[in-house]
Amino acid sequence: MSFAFQREQLVRFGHCDPAGIVFYPRYFEMLNELIEDWFARDLGLPFDVLIGQRQVGMPTAQLDTRFLRVSRHGDRLVQTIRIERLGGGSMTLRIAFDGADGTRVEFTQVLVCTSLATHKPQAFPADLRAALERSLAAQQETNT
Amino acid sequence: MSFAFQREQLVRFGHCDPAGIVFYPRYFEMLNELIEDWFARDLGLPFDVLIGQRQVGMPTAQLDTRFLRVSRHGDRLVQTIRIERLGGGSMTLRIAFDGADGTRVEFTQVLVCTSLATHKPQAFPADLRAALERSLAAQQETNT
Amino acid sequence: MSFAFQREQLVRFGHCDPAGIVFYPRYFEMLNELIEDWFARDLGLPFDVLIGQRQVGMPTAQLDTRFLRVSRHGDRLVQTIRIERLGGGSMTLRIAFDGADGTRVEFTQVLVCTSLATHKPQAFPADLRAALERSLAAQQETNT
Amino acid sequence: MSFAFQREQLVRFGHCDPAGIVFYPRYFEMLNELIEDWFARDLGLPFDVLIGQRQVGMPTAQLDTRFLRVSRHGDRLVQTIRIERLGGGSMTLRIAFDGADGTRVEFTQVLVCTSLATHKPQAFPADLRAALERSLAAQQETNT
Repeated sequence: MSFAFQREQLVRFGHCDPAGIVFYPRYFEMLNELIEDWFARDLGLPFDVLIGQRQVGMPTAQLDTRFLRVSRHGDRLVQTIRIERLGGGSMTLRIAFDGADGTRVEFTQVLVCTSLATHKPQAFPADLRAALERSLAAQQETNT
Repeated sequence: MSFAFQREQLVRFGHCDPAGIVFYPRYFEMLNELIEDWFARDLGLPFDVLIGQRQVGMPTAQLDTRFLRVSRHGDRLVQTIRIERLGGGSMTLRIAFDGADGTRVEFTQVLVCTSLATHKPQAFPADLRAALERSLAAQQETNT
Repeated sequence: MSFAFQREQLVRFGHCDPAGIVFYPRYFEMLNELIEDWFARDLGLPFDVLIGQRQVGMPTAQLDTRFLRVSRHGDRLVQTIRIERLGGGSMTLRIAFDGADGTRVEFTQVLVCTSLATHKPQAFPADLRAALERSLAAQQETNT
Repeated sequence: MSFAFQREQLVRFGHCDPAGIVFYPRYFEMLNELIEDWFARDLGLPFDVLIGQRQVGMPTAQLDTRFLRVSRHGDRLVQTIRIERLGGGSMTLRIAFDGADGTRVEFTQVLVCTSLATHKPQAFPADLRAALERSLAAQQETNT
């Protein structure tokens, strides 16, 4: 599958519940770390710079999740981000967390660029826009 | 609006991020506590009995979320559960977290009854089924 | 025992780990909520006002913890704050989380008043100082 | 400084509070991940095997913490474990989280080996004991 970014996540003791499987709010913490790593490592715009210094917010407007298989302590999840739609100030991502037996969780996430002064939507800053277009181009190349 | 269960949630310091608003994975922790309170207080089947002792799981299969407005530290959220569909071993809930300025977050959540021995779906146990039907009937009465 | 503030905390599903007992980082989340409730309900200075609006920090400088007995999902913990030392810009608290079989966790916590602009220590603001003295006086009365 | 294990931890957005610094319960989540990595990578006994399969618990009995300097989003913390005392069924660790400006947090942690069937203390299993002695020997060598 073509993708914009990929990394691996270990399922830790602290992610799991008394039923011995990942407590689902922990998947959303993992999701946020994945997006954070994509921005820092691939897009070159770490959140502490973008959000902290430049006061550009990137909140989630919509997040649709399918929990397909359980994950257990010690599992390794391959996490993949695919850009489905890149707009002027928002984007839609398709994200999969895959285990050895297939996809565990699937997300469709809409991220919106905002000003942290007002929490209102705004266009992506030019450097972020350019980085997202490069990441989308790289994704399309992995497809061929 | 008609509903099956309602409670209030304070937005705490620990729920909020450097942008001063609720960090969205914390909303899913709040959601799980809400469902837990519904089972314990309204359905009469606390999770420690249902999950811990009886080994009946109630995992989330699908969770679609709209983040409509930001929530800040100190806000009080009114959380409302509405049963949209009650099946033989699964149900669909519509849940709203409302603030003074309108709905902050909206969830559509599909919960599936499973055996914790196998993590496979099963029918609701009879007492849980009866309690859910009572909660649904109470919801329909609040509608009139 | 004499105390400044007391409340009850339910041990929730999300607090517990695959061993079926409270995952210890969750105790520190509970501790922070306890302190938050003491400030809001007893001292009359909610953290969203004190920290958010007035930019007065109340970070923890030192925290010594004894984990004496395990807590399980569904347990109710009685949480008790005792002011051990009230200084000009810091205080030492003794906190116990008690279950039916005795104390589960015991904390000695040093909180320091800071300016959030500089993260440097400062004296307690006068209204907080007065509220803390009232809380200490109430604690001494419960002792007699 | 001599040490048994070391790794680096990025301070993430989700670790930080509205004051823009690490929310202290998150330090204890980081601490648990550090211990988990030490057991998996250095001692060769991952928690999912030790705790999950072999039902050997490693709970914290005592945890004394000094918070010396604040940590901010984007900081990199060097985390160092030093074995201070290795007993027959418990050990005392000295752990430091260091930033560019010096030590941020210092922990003295007593871990106790237990049976998860009874939550009672027991001697370290022989392979864990041998691995801890190797880690302690390696620590002493880094000292010279």
